[in-house]
Amino acid sequence: MKAEIITIGDEILIGQIVDTNSAWIADQFNLNGIEIYQVTSVHDNHQHILEAIKNAEGKVDLVVITGGLGPTKDDITKNTLCEYFDTKLVFHEPTFEHIKKRFAKLSIDINKLNRDQALVPENCTVLFNKAGTAPGMWFERNDTIFVSLPGVPFEMKYLLEHEILPRLLKNGKKKAIYHKTVLTQGIPESMLAEKIEVWENALPENIKLAYLPGPMAVRLRLSAMGNDDTVLQNRVEEQIQKLQKIIPESIFGFDSETMAEVIGRMLKSKGKKLAVAESCTGGYISHLITSVAGSSEYFNGSVTAYSNQIKEKILDVKKETLSEFGAVSEQVAKEMALGAKQVLNADYAISTTGIAGPTGGTDEKPVGTVWIAVAGENKAFAEKFVFGFNRERNILRSSQTALQILRRVILEDL
Amino acid sequence: MKAEIITIGDEILIGQIVDTNSAWIADQFNLNGIEIYQVTSVHDNHQHILEAIKNAEGKVDLVVITGGLGPTKDDITKNTLCEYFDTKLVFHEPTFEHIKKRFAKLSIDINKLNRDQALVPENCTVLFNKAGTAPGMWFERNDTIFVSLPGVPFEMKYLLEHEILPRLLKNGKKKAIYHKTVLTQGIPESMLAEKIEVWENALPENIKLAYLPGPMAVRLRLSAMGNDDTVLQNRVEEQIQKLQKIIPESIFGFDSETMAEVIGRMLKSKGKKLAVAESCTGGYISHLITSVAGSSEYFNGSVTAYSNQIKEKILDVKKETLSEFGAVSEQVAKEMALGAKQVLNADYAISTTGIAGPTGGTDEKPVGTVWIAVAGENKAFAEKFVFGFNRERNILRSSQTALQILRRVILEDL
Repeated sequence: MKAEIITIGDEILIGQIVDTNSAWIADQFNLNGIEIYQVTSVHDNHQHILEAIKNAEGKVDLVVITGGLGPTKDDITKNTLCEYFDTKLVFHEPTFEHIKKRFAKLSIDINKLNRDQALVPENCTVLFNKAGTAPGMWFERNDTIFVSLPGVPFEMKYLLEHEILPRLLKNGKKKAIYHKTVLTQGIPESMLAEKIEVWENALPENIKLAYLPGPMAVRLRLSAMGNDDTVLQNRVEEQIQKLQKIIPESIFGFDSETMAEVIGRMLKSKGKKLAVAESCTGGYISHLITSVAGSSEYFNGSVTAYSNQIKEKILDVKKETLSEFGAVSEQVAKEMALGAKQVLNADYAISTTGIAGPTGGTDEKPVGTVWIAVAGENKAFAEKFVFGFNRERNILRSSQTALQILRRVILEDL
Repeated sequence: MKAEIITIGDEILIGQIVDTNSAWIADQFNLNGIEIYQVTSVHDNHQHILEAIKNAEGKVDLVVITGGLGPTKDDITKNTLCEYFDTKLVFHEPTFEHIKKRFAKLSIDINKLNRDQALVPENCTVLFNKAGTAPGMWFERNDTIFVSLPGVPFEMKYLLEHEILPRLLKNGKKKAIYHKTVLTQGIPESMLAEKIEVWENALPENIKLAYLPGPMAVRLRLSAMGNDDTVLQNRVEEQIQKLQKIIPESIFGFDSETMAEVIGRMLKSKGKKLAVAESCTGGYISHLITSVAGSSEYFNGSVTAYSNQIKEKILDVKKETLSEFGAVSEQVAKEMALGAKQVLNADYAISTTGIAGPTGGTDEKPVGTVWIAVAGENKAFAEKFVFGFNRERNILRSSQTALQILRRVILEDL
């Protein structure tokens, strides 16, 4: 089954809100084997909406229309649907009863705008909206299904989960589909592509590979389509096992896991504690780690030592090390990590010191230069990186890289 | 000028990522008086992309295409554009030089895929992408402009700001437009709307007000349209002066400023230093402060004291205070702030201690309970808040509230 989503609303087209509804619907449909052919966002405009629906009808089996059903005057979807299906609005008594009950609960009087929400095109099946006042609507013409839903995320989600999906799945037009995303880190996209080229070219016909690069990881998504869920899952897992032999050190997790979650799991299972000492990352590593629920089990704390004085005073970095090598140096990074491990009573510690930018660089140490150190149970070492010119990205990439090195250190029991 | 955005990428249509690029572009265009007619998201599919471009060409003056330019083989936009414009790919030497330089800096060898990023359709103007390796492309045919940009947000934004918008604005099809956004904090949206209702209703015909609520602030954007930039600016400023008399304590800044930037400016002008002690916010306040370039001038550092042991050891919180009142208490919050101010050699310090969730709450101190303390130059005090059940949002709201209290303390010289 193939679907198109049409979102209606000026607020999307002037950039006032991000269209998260479409992503949510697409995700739900995808999980249920319904393919999204296209997402189209249009204005609160009669002609434009008509055109978009007409355009979609020929190409897909299902048209999902969201938005434009509110009680205020920018609501035009229902009238447009009447024109499209050559029908008229009729009063739907059960919907009105529902609206009355909701308003009574809030002790608000009903006005004409609220009453008009009970008007629906005569040819539709009304979908009861327990989460709000605007009902969902279901139309069928020839071989195409059309549904119209409110744009309020909470109401849209209710109707999709409780009214739309059950009806679609009963129709049994569903195809089996299985996705798994492999999370990799440490190899740039282009090098990764070269490394896994032979594997990729040998993938079975019905398994598709997509590269999803991002600041924190390059994700590889395998999607299999077919008739049997279990068969598909097995086929995908087989391929992932092969992939793991090619890039064993780069795969850190699957699907929606974060690196901080993976590290948290490793530390918990070993009963070990982590500490962090940050200079250029300014607290971001600590934030990533503490974003994971339950992180207090393995995370004692961190020190953001932005000034040299604090590096000395709290992390016990030696004055001579700072003056001899400078704050952005292998030696200081190592002393910071060792100091944090000691002061914060941890088994592992990571540290960063660098020039996040946009100013502060020199010829020898340009903006983007970052030293990252990890103190493991038995040894400490530091690596130098030169990232870019953008402060925000330098903070992100330094943090990501630090966690990545830490993962390796924990894995290898260093 | 009217534009359509076409986003290319299977990952959008299976709901794996939210299309934030379109919202960002729409916002930028809107600020510059360019109207977005439609946003269309299509698959990484040659025919589908062709169809979408063809559809757009007749309706708009500008087609912005994002995505499908990465170095891996699921990249098909360039070939599709060649077919559309009946041209061929040619090698663009300056782009290749740029790619080589970027890779040399990272000490990575260039492979064929990287080299292929320097291939561009012969009829395009190449837009230099300082932020990445895939160049932007600019085409003109009849009266329509087509631009193709990488889908990586960071690179797309660079190209739009530095290459696309300047070229479009030079074309001079622009109408006079002036926007200013007032940043407010501390009043929920609905209460704010009530407070400023009379002012809002009295706004001149050509000034529009938009509420832009967000987790860190409620932003009020005033947009004026007309023929003369200076006149518009004066009219908007007049209205803002009136607004400032109605909600003087709630306005903390304008346009894209962050609270951390505003605080940074205040500290710099006073020549004062700030320190942070975090428990439940886990480093996020420190991250917000150090996201501001130049923050090392007024920020010495922070301590994330996740365990009680670290609160005692580094921040000098008394053992008895912890055992008598518990870690989440007024007394501990205050001792943390005073300790941070002392240990980190600062004039001001903020602290947070609370239960971020989703577990760890009790009847007396439910999930979402947070104590925030500020130590000013002369006094220290703490306030209690009860936020919600969501860990991520609790971290965000605690951090935002802490900065807001700090701003008040600095303003009032406490």
